[in-house]
Amino acid sequence: MNKSSLIAQIKQKKTFLCVGLDVDPNLIPEHLKNQKNGVLAFNKAIIDATKDLCVSYKINTAFFEAQGARGWDLMEEIFSYIPDNCLKIADAKRGDIGNTSSQYATAFFDNLKADAITLSPYMGFDSIDPFLAVKNKWSIVLALTSNKGSNDFEKLELTTGEKLYERVVKDLYSRYGTENLMFVVGATNDKDIATIRKLAPYSFFLVPGIGAQGGNLKSVCENGLNSEIGLLVNASRSIIYASSGADFATAAHDAAKSIQNEMSFYI
Amino acid sequence: MNKSSLIAQIKQKKTFLCVGLDVDPNLIPEHLKNQKNGVLAFNKAIIDATKDLCVSYKINTAFFEAQGARGWDLMEEIFSYIPDNCLKIADAKRGDIGNTSSQYATAFFDNLKADAITLSPYMGFDSIDPFLAVKNKWSIVLALTSNKGSNDFEKLELTTGEKLYERVVKDLYSRYGTENLMFVVGATNDKDIATIRKLAPYSFFLVPGIGAQGGNLKSVCENGLNSEIGLLVNASRSIIYASSGADFATAAHDAAKSIQNEMSFYI
Repeated sequence: MNKSSLIAQIKQKKTFLCVGLDVDPNLIPEHLKNQKNGVLAFNKAIIDATKDLCVSYKINTAFFEAQGARGWDLMEEIFSYIPDNCLKIADAKRGDIGNTSSQYATAFFDNLKADAITLSPYMGFDSIDPFLAVKNKWSIVLALTSNKGSNDFEKLELTTGEKLYERVVKDLYSRYGTENLMFVVGATNDKDIATIRKLAPYSFFLVPGIGAQGGNLKSVCENGLNSEIGLLVNASRSIIYASSGADFATAAHDAAKSIQNEMSFYI
Repeated sequence: MNKSSLIAQIKQKKTFLCVGLDVDPNLIPEHLKNQKNGVLAFNKAIIDATKDLCVSYKINTAFFEAQGARGWDLMEEIFSYIPDNCLKIADAKRGDIGNTSSQYATAFFDNLKADAITLSPYMGFDSIDPFLAVKNKWSIVLALTSNKGSNDFEKLELTTGEKLYERVVKDLYSRYGTENLMFVVGATNDKDIATIRKLAPYSFFLVPGIGAQGGNLKSVCENGLNSEIGLLVNASRSIIYASSGADFATAAHDAAKSIQNEMSFYI
């Protein structure tokens, strides 16, 4: 899905919600826990209940890797179940030397059929280039994250007067443009979103951290929206675990609907 | 495997070689390519041929993830085949917010039975803490890598007068000590190894980049050795692809033996 298609979907559905499928098998409703393919059934039900209210799904690969080979199969099944009018993000935070990053690109873009992957910038441009070299796929690079640890290195001040995350944004924006590159920008640091928006006026930002992590949608929108919307705001736990009972899908729908309602005012 | 056991193995075998199993199914010998379980057979033969000449194996997870669920099974089979007197490293370069990093720790330490995992420090302490919280397992954090891209962000100068990678080493060394923490220190930047050794005098360094990537073992040793050796030097392609013919295992043995010979003078 290219940038103009993504913007068209946002305008049509009046939402820029990304639903995060951070599915922990221990946290799905009791009646699914011991069911064969219970995790798959859970994910499918969440997708069915929310697909008209979001434009993207983000699979947190760690939760599936923790299930071994079966988890990898599950990711493939879930990606193929997500409708093609939703951007399919593998939240994998990869990044390695060139020949290794090419292998990751194969794993996620070719095999799992993800549209996008999250990447760590620490190792530099040549760890990111192999992903950007794949046509019609997105790289979503960590800029400023939503955890407390973002203070430890991301916000360190450089001799140039910039913070590390600002330099990451500047350098990558100038190198790769906006058609296949997004940034991860944490919602819990919402004052900093405005700073990053100035540095990357036409980029899409993937914003985690609303809901369970405490971020505020209004503040994210006020600081991050651009003329093309330019935001994908992710909520995971507050949607997928909105209820731990048999009504989990309805509850997920309602939680997503509430966010979509708020988003619709900005579109 | 704890630090004292690792040092004992190094002294007993007179080697601090780590063999990197970056196995690309397209690059294994022809007679194995179309054989069922050819990749597994290749890895087992490499391990059999080199296990007395090294103290560690490093599985580059990307090469297995590119094979989907079967690749994940393969990693499990290979880790279980590696003798227990060798440190089993998952070169995965992970790192995410706390509850996600815990899932990665489960995936690699509990399920795959790796002794160690490589991590990216970008997201800060709370992305690393969950790995260090697992007893008797190692976290190997990227400090200065062996690729050209290490110039892009890792070497940026901070207002404190340090470079980013120096700050990463200082902060993590002081927070986590040396019993369960190593650093990735690229051999192609061997002059910088001395700098990092001063910052982390008692840490083990995992040093990739000799062989195919151009690093020089002598220079690495002169700059990086400490009184406990303190080095695991990795070679991947120069060993596992030493021959593309039916004699690949013998050639791998010979390539590893040559490195082990050189290492023995330092032990």
